[in-house]
Amino acid sequence: MKNIASIVADIAEEMRGMTDRGQVANYIPPLACVSPDRFGIAVVMADGTVHAGGDAEEPFSIQSVSKVFSLTLALGMIGDALWSRVGREPSGSAFNSIVQLETEQGIPRNPFINAGAIVVADVLLASGTPAEAIAGVLRFVRGLARDETISIDASVAAAELATGYRNLALANYMRSFGNLMHPVEQALGVYFHQCALAMSCRQLAMAGRFLAHDGRDPATGRCIVTPQRARRINALMMLCGHYDNSGEFAFRVGLPGKSGVGGGILAVVPGTASIAVWSPGLNAKGNSQLGALALERLAARTGWSVFEAAQG
Amino acid sequence: MKNIASIVADIAEEMRGMTDRGQVANYIPPLACVSPDRFGIAVVMADGTVHAGGDAEEPFSIQSVSKVFSLTLALGMIGDALWSRVGREPSGSAFNSIVQLETEQGIPRNPFINAGAIVVADVLLASGTPAEAIAGVLRFVRGLARDETISIDASVAAAELATGYRNLALANYMRSFGNLMHPVEQALGVYFHQCALAMSCRQLAMAGRFLAHDGRDPATGRCIVTPQRARRINALMMLCGHYDNSGEFAFRVGLPGKSGVGGGILAVVPGTASIAVWSPGLNAKGNSQLGALALERLAARTGWSVFEAAQG
Amino acid sequence: MKNIASIVADIAEEMRGMTDRGQVANYIPPLACVSPDRFGIAVVMADGTVHAGGDAEEPFSIQSVSKVFSLTLALGMIGDALWSRVGREPSGSAFNSIVQLETEQGIPRNPFINAGAIVVADVLLASGTPAEAIAGVLRFVRGLARDETISIDASVAAAELATGYRNLALANYMRSFGNLMHPVEQALGVYFHQCALAMSCRQLAMAGRFLAHDGRDPATGRCIVTPQRARRINALMMLCGHYDNSGEFAFRVGLPGKSGVGGGILAVVPGTASIAVWSPGLNAKGNSQLGALALERLAARTGWSVFEAAQG
Amino acid sequence: MKNIASIVADIAEEMRGMTDRGQVANYIPPLACVSPDRFGIAVVMADGTVHAGGDAEEPFSIQSVSKVFSLTLALGMIGDALWSRVGREPSGSAFNSIVQLETEQGIPRNPFINAGAIVVADVLLASGTPAEAIAGVLRFVRGLARDETISIDASVAAAELATGYRNLALANYMRSFGNLMHPVEQALGVYFHQCALAMSCRQLAMAGRFLAHDGRDPATGRCIVTPQRARRINALMMLCGHYDNSGEFAFRVGLPGKSGVGGGILAVVPGTASIAVWSPGLNAKGNSQLGALALERLAARTGWSVFEAAQG
Repeated sequence: MKNIASIVADIAEEMRGMTDRGQVANYIPPLACVSPDRFGIAVVMADGTVHAGGDAEEPFSIQSVSKVFSLTLALGMIGDALWSRVGREPSGSAFNSIVQLETEQGIPRNPFINAGAIVVADVLLASGTPAEAIAGVLRFVRGLARDETISIDASVAAAELATGYRNLALANYMRSFGNLMHPVEQALGVYFHQCALAMSCRQLAMAGRFLAHDGRDPATGRCIVTPQRARRINALMMLCGHYDNSGEFAFRVGLPGKSGVGGGILAVVPGTASIAVWSPGLNAKGNSQLGALALERLAARTGWSVFEAAQG
Repeated sequence: MKNIASIVADIAEEMRGMTDRGQVANYIPPLACVSPDRFGIAVVMADGTVHAGGDAEEPFSIQSVSKVFSLTLALGMIGDALWSRVGREPSGSAFNSIVQLETEQGIPRNPFINAGAIVVADVLLASGTPAEAIAGVLRFVRGLARDETISIDASVAAAELATGYRNLALANYMRSFGNLMHPVEQALGVYFHQCALAMSCRQLAMAGRFLAHDGRDPATGRCIVTPQRARRINALMMLCGHYDNSGEFAFRVGLPGKSGVGGGILAVVPGTASIAVWSPGLNAKGNSQLGALALERLAARTGWSVFEAAQG
Repeated sequence: MKNIASIVADIAEEMRGMTDRGQVANYIPPLACVSPDRFGIAVVMADGTVHAGGDAEEPFSIQSVSKVFSLTLALGMIGDALWSRVGREPSGSAFNSIVQLETEQGIPRNPFINAGAIVVADVLLASGTPAEAIAGVLRFVRGLARDETISIDASVAAAELATGYRNLALANYMRSFGNLMHPVEQALGVYFHQCALAMSCRQLAMAGRFLAHDGRDPATGRCIVTPQRARRINALMMLCGHYDNSGEFAFRVGLPGKSGVGGGILAVVPGTASIAVWSPGLNAKGNSQLGALALERLAARTGWSVFEAAQG
Repeated sequence: MKNIASIVADIAEEMRGMTDRGQVANYIPPLACVSPDRFGIAVVMADGTVHAGGDAEEPFSIQSVSKVFSLTLALGMIGDALWSRVGREPSGSAFNSIVQLETEQGIPRNPFINAGAIVVADVLLASGTPAEAIAGVLRFVRGLARDETISIDASVAAAELATGYRNLALANYMRSFGNLMHPVEQALGVYFHQCALAMSCRQLAMAGRFLAHDGRDPATGRCIVTPQRARRINALMMLCGHYDNSGEFAFRVGLPGKSGVGGGILAVVPGTASIAVWSPGLNAKGNSQLGALALERLAARTGWSVFEAAQG
């Protein structure tokens, strides 16, 4: 096996030349303006070494990748009580489908579809005002990445708020079943701001390290979550991290991961590495086209799939 | 960590004392007659050592666990062409739901729901008559387990055929979309017979070893499938192996696995072990209640979850 | 046949003695407080004779019965252009289902399910501010009933606004498909106020006369809508007037009708009579239990079903 | 108003010149071979006068129109007990949808969707063998039309049997819920043969007279069904007679009717007339395009809508 540094460099180079890069999300202007030419990758090894390539230092809107962090925070606040309000099964439908909510009485299938993440945001509001809850998410992510420069892009949050009728529908619908405790506007305020976190691949990969290391940040030795919880969050990422494309991602890549409509994907190799990739063009299911391809190649060349006997 | 032998023995002992054992499947008489008191476990390590406990030598109806073997055979016959006829995503609905087939034009979501396995059985018919296709499945499983005593319980297959209206509906429905090539009765004949395979935990764990070892049988060194294919089958088991309870299984156990309504579960620890458990009582979602619990405890005490950094 | 006056009196008397009166809607306090003992009936014949019985003079919240009047107004404003935004088919699901909206891209199945009536309310906003639109509805209904004392119960509208999460979900959902032109709050404001119209059976039966007489108010000779439009509104009432209980109503009663959760039903006998009944207890499908029963007996004893050869 | 004879003649002439005639059903060869140029109409007045035009004497495959006759027979056999096995509500989905059956536990929404008609056929089997049940349907229809030349086109029935996978799926699915009492093949045998009834417009209009006259055949005075039952069958035709296009038909035509994929429609004007039209080209929802148009014009020019005050 070539060393990781070469593999990462090769992949970054290969992605640069790709012509079929998918479609950039265009439902809000700030996302639509990002160039489809961008591609970044950052791999943080267990010892802290970082292998980066492409636009690895350029911040992008992490969008739904943020759901991993908000879920972690919410579990820290109320623990398994969360699971009475959100399920743990793949949805079998689109990220913003409302059909399942009717059949299942306002309980979203998992915390990574929009409805589930809105419930999680509602949980975070137990900690204070919307501003305080948002500040809490930002503080948590900055701490994980050990980088105080990470910020929330207010223009993205504002654009989401202005056009987020589908999410307003989901939230009101759950509220009608009693599955939101705070005003819909507050839960969505927290949700849209967490989605507007702007992070680079390097920052994102740093922030995800605890999931690759049984809940502990290997840089500081600090325990973020218990090993069991880290394992379970990984399981949720594997089963539900890519909406109705999760099976495809597991099939091709074989790693727990979470994608966002901004084109970012966070993936973890338990015991080995935390990885972030970014390319804004999306495939038909709404996941980063080159991001998934880069991860597929990385997993194949390193043997990092969790389904492989001879890992890394 | 205690050694594996002790852990397995402890778990077998703990399961013996459980009072809440779920409900034995009763839709056909041969399954309904099995005692809920049964529990068996067999763990085959990479070096061939077998740790067994409880009723590990008693044959049971493997039912849907057989879908792993028929899928492997079908992929060997037509390769990735299979994926134009069957999807790779979790279904988000019950094992025998027909709703999704209408929405998605007769293409089952994955090869482990009934509809998908019927398509797989239809593929196996390309090899000859129904009798030949069934013989092929039996030969394949015997070869994997290196045990010529494995047989198909004809009374189980006959009972399924006599009452399998739901599967007849699924098969005819797919036929109406042109997604079955052979007569419905033939595809179902193969399907019901493969489900009627009777195997003990020891035999099943032996037969699953190739999935734990990148497609190679470690006993013989023979390559059953490529490493990539083994990885992909594992991914499918992780995402879809327990019907609409797959998320729960990944969350609690964290291993690729496939359950059957007879109470058996096959699970693999890539690089480490192949495991079979059996207890006929089922939980509300149709998966072995004690089987899943035993695997949860085994994974927790051994650290065998694929989502854990410090495995084994 | 006994004369109409006797039949109406008999039915009112029979309803008084009924013990199984259904459940009063309790989702908002103002509705929950109405006594289930109430029953009223008013029949206005072609010549203007009114046969009334029970609590025929007591105002109640007409709720969804108002959708007939708002539809009539909206058709008067934009004509058949309405049908590009709302369908004309029975829904096959509950009055507040959101599932169909996802499948059919934000186009409600008909103007009598909640989603459809919200679109109609959105159309009414073309006439001015929400207050003006509401005033327009009130003016229209007062004119039809020739009764300036009809009013809107502001406490009912306020209670709906405070708890109407499901309708907020429907409205935001349609907005996400571009099928609302005005702010969600405004469309719902109009909708909740029109539903809060308080009318007695006598007033309601008077207001519905134009539908029984080819669009013309027989008292004044004034043409409210064309004969074709009256016929079509009647058809919509017949097919969709009782949510997912419309088939049952047609089967048992055989008249175009529209029910409301306040327990009122407006029904018309083309060429012969306009009828309003009211009893607040609802059956399992949300329609007035005694109201429907009273109409069934009335239709049977008078021969007023539109499906009967020898009418009236 | 012009007299009926002239109106019928005009309409037949107008239909001859139409260029947009819809698509002829092509799922089985015997139907696909019928020329789209055909159009026939027959109107039987209360006094027995027949006004016919176009190809009114040419037999065509009545297909689902037959469901009216089989329903009538089944109600004669088991009465209202039928309604525990079939609903009375519009389906809100396509004629051959299986989705609703899953949600509602194998109970079809109404007797006019395929699943419901298969249950009705199963009821008819209580009278004897499939051949006897089929003979019973034929005898009944011949008696109604007083025409012993009416026959069943065996080639049509055979073609349906050979390719009817969707109906096999529906039947097996209901069987799995215990809602068929006889073997699936027998119920489908009856169903496909009744659908293969070949009748001319004149014969069909004659056979439908009892529905226009409170259950009594005006030619003989014989009571076919009670007035209540006639009224109720009419109600079902109005609500569910045109699959998911029933609302549209009620809106445009305003008469109880039942369409078939062979291009025929039976409609009744209570107290006035029984009407059959036929033109094989279908609209997007599977109903005769010119047939519906002809009925719309007929109803408009005669004032025959049941929703109109001043009928006939």
